[in-house]
Amino acid sequence: MIKQIEIDLDKRRRGFHLITNELIAALPELPKVGMLNVFLQHSSAGLTINENADPTVRDDFETVFNKMVPEYDADYKHVLEGEDDMPAHIKSSLVGTSLTIPITNGRLNLGIWQGIYLCEFRNNGGRRRLVLTIYY
Amino acid sequence: MIKQIEIDLDKRRRGFHLITNELIAALPELPKVGMLNVFLQHSSAGLTINENADPTVRDDFETVFNKMVPEYDADYKHVLEGEDDMPAHIKSSLVGTSLTIPITNGRLNLGIWQGIYLCEFRNNGGRRRLVLTIYY
Amino acid sequence: MIKQIEIDLDKRRRGFHLITNELIAALPELPKVGMLNVFLQHSSAGLTINENADPTVRDDFETVFNKMVPEYDADYKHVLEGEDDMPAHIKSSLVGTSLTIPITNGRLNLGIWQGIYLCEFRNNGGRRRLVLTIYY
Repeated sequence: MIKQIEIDLDKRRRGFHLITNELIAALPELPKVGMLNVFLQHSSAGLTINENADPTVRDDFETVFNKMVPEYDADYKHVLEGEDDMPAHIKSSLVGTSLTIPITNGRLNLGIWQGIYLCEFRNNGGRRRLVLTIYY
Repeated sequence: MIKQIEIDLDKRRRGFHLITNELIAALPELPKVGMLNVFLQHSSAGLTINENADPTVRDDFETVFNKMVPEYDADYKHVLEGEDDMPAHIKSSLVGTSLTIPITNGRLNLGIWQGIYLCEFRNNGGRRRLVLTIYY
Repeated sequence: MIKQIEIDLDKRRRGFHLITNELIAALPELPKVGMLNVFLQHSSAGLTINENADPTVRDDFETVFNKMVPEYDADYKHVLEGEDDMPAHIKSSLVGTSLTIPITNGRLNLGIWQGIYLCEFRNNGGRRRLVLTIYY
């Protein structure tokens, strides 16, 4: 069986943001056992699962991703949408835009230190749409 | 319920290639609501979802991935299959080989700017096989 | 229908480790057609699918990931858990912690050269827990 809803996340500043609680609050009642897919309908932001406790982890993510995929690279051809745009596309493919998470005993079965991040790679990214699909 | 088929993609040159339309054309009739998994059976190519409009985005992907994972690194041990082979394996794990995409109203529910890329990381990669699984 | 189990992987040294056979041995009887999701409940290790034959490929993975995400970066804020910790978090998000693999004719439908890697990014990572979900 399948349940599916779409939700919009409010605009966030560039960076890595914990959205676990916001996501859980938006879900319908979960089955006892199943799967959740979280799908982001954008190509300049991403989703990932990582450490949910220390906010400096998310700061360091921003630092490292900016070093891995620098702006102002003279080799970029796609520059019309701003210096942050092409790096945002690359970063989006490095983390991905689709998460598949097990459901156990009616809850997301994340590890104790795992949280869900929205990765906002644009300077001015706007609202972001998620498709949430539960199957069981 | 599950439907599953396998398809081969024709050989493509090294680079990032939009395959959204080719993939959709190969799919059986989609359920009203469900999920599609696209699985690539190779370890030197990858799949990702990214910008579907400007071809220079795909050119820049090739440029950036080559900078992130350079060829001719004296530290590589696995060099027998060519200088492009070991970087191809790394790049494959950076983007991944499995995409999970929601189906809504009988269509893939991609964002308006999202397309599906085959990432061909070998200089001479040959045909590539996909397993397409629809569940609903 | 859904089947779900949890298993613990024994502690491994830092590096990339083939776990395909160990994983298959832990699975219950597989359906004729379906999907398997493998979910790792940690944020400093990862899962990926890559070349299953030459052990030097896994050595080179360790070399390249250490170059892409260096330790001892003066810009890291999250350093209390050791110099290997923050890079481990980043590497975990680069490969991901969730794999979705098709099942065909009662077997995992991996390509002939594909194997499943546990990516242990900590120097001293301990046991690692997986949630295995089969749906069909």
